[in-house]
Amino acid sequence: MTKPPSNSGDLSRREALTSLAIGGAALITGCASAPEPQSPAPHPAPSPNAMTIPTSLTGRHAVVPLPFAPGSLNGISERMITSHHENNYGGAVKNLNRAEEELSRITAETPPFVVAALRERELTFRNSKALHEAYFANLGGNGRRSGAIEAALGQAYGTTARWEQHIRATAMGLGGGSGWALLVFELDTGALRTVSSQSHTQAAATGFPLLVMDMYEHSYQMDFGAGVARYVDAFFANVQWEEVNRRLERALKMSAIARGSG
Amino acid sequence: MTKPPSNSGDLSRREALTSLAIGGAALITGCASAPEPQSPAPHPAPSPNAMTIPTSLTGRHAVVPLPFAPGSLNGISERMITSHHENNYGGAVKNLNRAEEELSRITAETPPFVVAALRERELTFRNSKALHEAYFANLGGNGRRSGAIEAALGQAYGTTARWEQHIRATAMGLGGGSGWALLVFELDTGALRTVSSQSHTQAAATGFPLLVMDMYEHSYQMDFGAGVARYVDAFFANVQWEEVNRRLERALKMSAIARGSG
Amino acid sequence: MTKPPSNSGDLSRREALTSLAIGGAALITGCASAPEPQSPAPHPAPSPNAMTIPTSLTGRHAVVPLPFAPGSLNGISERMITSHHENNYGGAVKNLNRAEEELSRITAETPPFVVAALRERELTFRNSKALHEAYFANLGGNGRRSGAIEAALGQAYGTTARWEQHIRATAMGLGGGSGWALLVFELDTGALRTVSSQSHTQAAATGFPLLVMDMYEHSYQMDFGAGVARYVDAFFANVQWEEVNRRLERALKMSAIARGSG
Amino acid sequence: MTKPPSNSGDLSRREALTSLAIGGAALITGCASAPEPQSPAPHPAPSPNAMTIPTSLTGRHAVVPLPFAPGSLNGISERMITSHHENNYGGAVKNLNRAEEELSRITAETPPFVVAALRERELTFRNSKALHEAYFANLGGNGRRSGAIEAALGQAYGTTARWEQHIRATAMGLGGGSGWALLVFELDTGALRTVSSQSHTQAAATGFPLLVMDMYEHSYQMDFGAGVARYVDAFFANVQWEEVNRRLERALKMSAIARGSG
Repeated sequence: MTKPPSNSGDLSRREALTSLAIGGAALITGCASAPEPQSPAPHPAPSPNAMTIPTSLTGRHAVVPLPFAPGSLNGISERMITSHHENNYGGAVKNLNRAEEELSRITAETPPFVVAALRERELTFRNSKALHEAYFANLGGNGRRSGAIEAALGQAYGTTARWEQHIRATAMGLGGGSGWALLVFELDTGALRTVSSQSHTQAAATGFPLLVMDMYEHSYQMDFGAGVARYVDAFFANVQWEEVNRRLERALKMSAIARGSG
Repeated sequence: MTKPPSNSGDLSRREALTSLAIGGAALITGCASAPEPQSPAPHPAPSPNAMTIPTSLTGRHAVVPLPFAPGSLNGISERMITSHHENNYGGAVKNLNRAEEELSRITAETPPFVVAALRERELTFRNSKALHEAYFANLGGNGRRSGAIEAALGQAYGTTARWEQHIRATAMGLGGGSGWALLVFELDTGALRTVSSQSHTQAAATGFPLLVMDMYEHSYQMDFGAGVARYVDAFFANVQWEEVNRRLERALKMSAIARGSG
Repeated sequence: MTKPPSNSGDLSRREALTSLAIGGAALITGCASAPEPQSPAPHPAPSPNAMTIPTSLTGRHAVVPLPFAPGSLNGISERMITSHHENNYGGAVKNLNRAEEELSRITAETPPFVVAALRERELTFRNSKALHEAYFANLGGNGRRSGAIEAALGQAYGTTARWEQHIRATAMGLGGGSGWALLVFELDTGALRTVSSQSHTQAAATGFPLLVMDMYEHSYQMDFGAGVARYVDAFFANVQWEEVNRRLERALKMSAIARGSG
Repeated sequence: MTKPPSNSGDLSRREALTSLAIGGAALITGCASAPEPQSPAPHPAPSPNAMTIPTSLTGRHAVVPLPFAPGSLNGISERMITSHHENNYGGAVKNLNRAEEELSRITAETPPFVVAALRERELTFRNSKALHEAYFANLGGNGRRSGAIEAALGQAYGTTARWEQHIRATAMGLGGGSGWALLVFELDTGALRTVSSQSHTQAAATGFPLLVMDMYEHSYQMDFGAGVARYVDAFFANVQWEEVNRRLERALKMSAIARGSG
């Protein structure tokens, strides 16, 4: 436990005291002889155009509020979307902070398998955070698709109907368990890809998410039971395609840079 | 992409004839009554500044040649790096093409679990392609680190030595099996993250790879047997940090765009 | 598609006609020149003490009915347990049959990655079937533990309270996603192990399930939302420990055989 | 098992002192105020026919020696099989012991995600141990198949050649990464199933392994490079089918018990 931030919203003092002691620091008992965790070097004063990289493994990630009124979705209840945001997404942020805390304390003596185990949890919670944020951010719309994404889907899949067949089949294939159905923009190729992720850890290594559909059962069980198809309909009825178009616009610029021409 | 291109380098005619028939088209027997696979709409003539999205699922990916002379690495044999490139990476490209072919043929009747299964393979081979290309591209150097990455690692981890502890522990934790040890740049936060991926499908959902270390046993078994630590040493002795710096430079620009300020 | 059984409950004729054609047989179009799928050799007439192994990959698995009245559980609703049984378990049985059908048709030309993909689905659905059956079969009780399992848990974990700490922590660690929390009997060692499975495919390779707790969200979301702890309480309030004791008794005998002394 | 046994072969005193402190006990610094780990109740004196369950989580698993002279295999080198046994299998046993130690120390305050992470590692190493032992034990033969397994494969797959097609395709589908190709006996159905496991954690939940083929690259890279097919040939040339027949004989008896008729 490095320095539990006293003003941190998500890490209570009690939790801080009881968290793991990687490398042997005795947190519960407060033994003073535990090795000092590495503290990050102070940030240099930013100069114009200076690159400033945030500290890694701070354990201080915060929940991003829902970007729409929870009761305003069409066919997705306030109760379900609120639970999704507070419990599943909120829990991931909390656990990410805890995992980062543990990882910030590894020493040369920490068994590699422990590092592997913690890193797997870190990736789980980090992707859960990122994908949940993108999911909530592409909801709250009216489901009407237009603009650049319309053209892009047509170019990529021949017809937008063909893409819809792909994304629906992908979503249905994930029903009854965990996962994400995604449309990503491949930064290294400029192509679109419809991705099936079976857990938070699965993702496209060079993909930038354009459309994110949560297929974990907590996304639909409360309102739809096992009715995955009805959830997929409800999801699409609420997609904010303007947000997707903003992501596409950014992805096009980013991809030009990634491929050396931007 | 449904009609296997006769002039395609990586998909032979015989393989094309024997591949699966998703949706019922009989490839082996050439039954003519099989439903026509969806063909992509012709690309519109590109106009200045027009967005052009490549066709998805073409099944026409090509192998990127090794960016260095295979015998020129220091402590990694020509035999091993050549087998890695031709067999493991080359095999992934070939399989990606086959998976895309199958996926290009799904119909409304294709069982969703089949789509899920093919998409899991598609992600496996697509990430394998991307990560192998990034791996080979960050080899062929002299292992001396300098420039912006040096500062970035210090800012992120306190000291570069601390990051080295993390990346090594992460790599060692993956020894004896499959996976990738990565340093990624998170496009949504501008932070660096050291990632443990246990298979081709695991990746950081918003991460852009800066340093890629293949921890699949085919990366080291031929030269080092089970000597994972010696492989990690050899990997670092050959890293081309200039390439890493180029990626960092691009990532900084891309991240500014992703976060709405570029 | 070998011979769609006309009297099969779970595979309708329409589904049979539209299923995949592994190896090129055109199912939808009915092309006659497709290669004949391998049909299993007729079973020899059983003689006394003759070993009779059922045919593999029949695609004829049937749903096992709920072993208790669905409305009779204490704190787990009829609606949720019925949906769990019919949709999630029933869907797994149906998909297992479909996966077996596809696998029964592989030929020497089927790309190995397709076999891998289908086998991964086969394992998913086969384990889902087995574990769901064991789950439903250890519900319908009054949650009062006694008999040999009480002694066994004490011997294995020091105190039964210690085991309860383990199983609860294991279950809570799986909250918000997919998985199973299990107590298994290791046939090769005679030991008990508390197992965390993150998906249907993860299981103890030499373990015989004694207690099976479904931690997929469809096991609790409908009644408990994100209240995993309340579900775990409700699960334990309904465990049929007599069934667990029956499994333990069998496991002890089986283990003696496995280890060569029975 | 919390106090690392001083006479333990596989866990050195130094390693014991540096292992993790789950729940806050400071191992490195030896702080005395750490909470006492739960010690298992003493074993009652065994009475005739008494059930004796070993203590769980002892962290005292031992390596089983190779059951054949390492230089005696046909086409699999002594160097490779020795490394496989000592490094990969031996490493799994060592890591299983460490994971059990960590798990033996969890308290009510240990974050559930840490328990999940450690349990995933525990399952990985426990299955690795079991499967490696079964793998080595079914090698050292002359590859000639006969006896009950011959009849069983014919009954299950129609012809033994058909099964060979399945197991080979399954093995080839796992090439280039991690996994196991298995023939298991399903204790709950009495059927045989050919299983593709993509990692140590994937297994048939009710399956008893009959034939175990390690498809991790450390099983073949040293001798065969990327030549998976040649390895599969070499594996089969060395299978001890008498051992497989012994397992089948036991499985038949165990299955009768599992299904309530034995």
